[in-house]
Amino acid sequence: MAERIVIALGGNALGKNLPEQMAAVKHTAKAIVDLIEAGYEVVVSHGNGPQVGMINTAMTTLSREDPSHPMAPMSVCTAMSQGYIGYDLQNSLREEMLDRGIHKGVATILTQVEVDPEDPAFQNPTKPIGTFMTKAEAEEMRRRGNAVMEDAGRGWRRCVASPLPRSIIEIETIRTLVEAGQVVVAAGGGGIPVYPTGRNHLKGAGAVIDKDFASELLAEELNADVLIILTAVEKVAVNFGKPEQTWLDRMTPAEASRYAAEGQFAPGSMLPKVQAAVRFAESRPGRRALITLLEKAGAGIAGETGTTISM
Amino acid sequence: MAERIVIALGGNALGKNLPEQMAAVKHTAKAIVDLIEAGYEVVVSHGNGPQVGMINTAMTTLSREDPSHPMAPMSVCTAMSQGYIGYDLQNSLREEMLDRGIHKGVATILTQVEVDPEDPAFQNPTKPIGTFMTKAEAEEMRRRGNAVMEDAGRGWRRCVASPLPRSIIEIETIRTLVEAGQVVVAAGGGGIPVYPTGRNHLKGAGAVIDKDFASELLAEELNADVLIILTAVEKVAVNFGKPEQTWLDRMTPAEASRYAAEGQFAPGSMLPKVQAAVRFAESRPGRRALITLLEKAGAGIAGETGTTISM
Repeated sequence: MAERIVIALGGNALGKNLPEQMAAVKHTAKAIVDLIEAGYEVVVSHGNGPQVGMINTAMTTLSREDPSHPMAPMSVCTAMSQGYIGYDLQNSLREEMLDRGIHKGVATILTQVEVDPEDPAFQNPTKPIGTFMTKAEAEEMRRRGNAVMEDAGRGWRRCVASPLPRSIIEIETIRTLVEAGQVVVAAGGGGIPVYPTGRNHLKGAGAVIDKDFASELLAEELNADVLIILTAVEKVAVNFGKPEQTWLDRMTPAEASRYAAEGQFAPGSMLPKVQAAVRFAESRPGRRALITLLEKAGAGIAGETGTTISM
Repeated sequence: MAERIVIALGGNALGKNLPEQMAAVKHTAKAIVDLIEAGYEVVVSHGNGPQVGMINTAMTTLSREDPSHPMAPMSVCTAMSQGYIGYDLQNSLREEMLDRGIHKGVATILTQVEVDPEDPAFQNPTKPIGTFMTKAEAEEMRRRGNAVMEDAGRGWRRCVASPLPRSIIEIETIRTLVEAGQVVVAAGGGGIPVYPTGRNHLKGAGAVIDKDFASELLAEELNADVLIILTAVEKVAVNFGKPEQTWLDRMTPAEASRYAAEGQFAPGSMLPKVQAAVRFAESRPGRRALITLLEKAGAGIAGETGTTISM
């Protein structure tokens, strides 16, 4: 039976604006279709950092110019970004498959992901979004009830909470399509964050879910064999950037957690990737996570490169 | 066996901005879930006029303020609008079903619809989109290569082509989900308009497909029994607004086409609805189309009101 893979693309891998995204998805599609051609069942998830920032800025600008349009909540901006990115991504995947004579449906599923309104992340927004602001603009933004932060010396940005995902609302839809042999794009941007309220209502949350954690949950719920988390380096390193830097071929979840506790991985960058990988590898024996470059996904899954996390 | 219905919602029925849409979809969901509760298999399509206009304006404003963001093509704006509307719509449908104890998946499928690049509509853009402009702004817009039109004395607007739909790219996905018993939202805003070019490439078209024609094609391709086109009146009338005005309970396709040829139906309003209804009723014996109000859909399908078009 074919192994099932969930592959998590970075938002940056999709480009920072429309023409960049159009070019980037072609390259991305080739690497993903390599896996499909090799016989794997593939589900694609992706980040949306630059894209949801662009949409958030556009909607904020609109509401400033025309007050009949209230500010768009982050949940709505994420829904739009799933449409925007999914369109280019599914189109490129379709074309690349047809070019190789592969006839499979490709679908983007608008995906909501449940978070806990009591998640401590809501008390401490850490995820920067949108464009840079001056300090004065940031103070104005804060007066209007938004959290802001100084981002690595580059200026001020709005920031939102990044709660953990609890469940994927559209999981049955995704599963039905995967089992029908289709290539599915789902949980884009970590999913549209929602939380249950009232009897059966789901309310949009002012948050962005980390796409690595959302992809991990997706992989668990689909009973995938492999979770591939793409990044900008071929392997995970310890003592990164130091003379004793060591690239890692494999880690057990216990080893990875120990390195994480030592502070070996950068928060907001490699750390959530390693944490998501650990969580997946620990979730059931036989499951493995791979962290590598997009171009190395095929070689990595064959055990030739990348960093594999498994028990 | 359950009858299969494709129901086409108007973009205006979804409200003109975010809070309006949130309120409108609740009302819409009740009427749709009435049909589901009555045992019909329901597929939902919808317009996106005000929504894609809002997104187009937001993206245009962004690109004016920050030239690193080129103007977003209409295809991209439509993809975003499918995410925006689908999110609210699927969420309301889910909640309304759960409130009634109905457990069914609900999914929004990002849908591309193929058009013919040689469609004569491209020579004669007729569909107004976005905000109103002054004559000077319209002339500037025209100098940049866009078509503009004076819209019913209310000001100038950008306008785009409205070509006919030829095929629905994601039809297999939609069919798989419908056959698995899920409620599907598809072909939003008439679908993302694309045309084939090169070997297997689909290129976004600077167009908006009429949602009634797209819904009709969707109904044909899903082998639906009924196409419901919602509008602002309970029945279709001839001699509308005149002393001899007559509401119609039924029409054959031949009768409807004769009335259309007489100029009985307003172009851009009732005319495309009647044309789509005729096309569906003629496509196979036994198929029928219903034109009515959202609130009357249930009574209409039972033959109690609305205008039914069938052979």
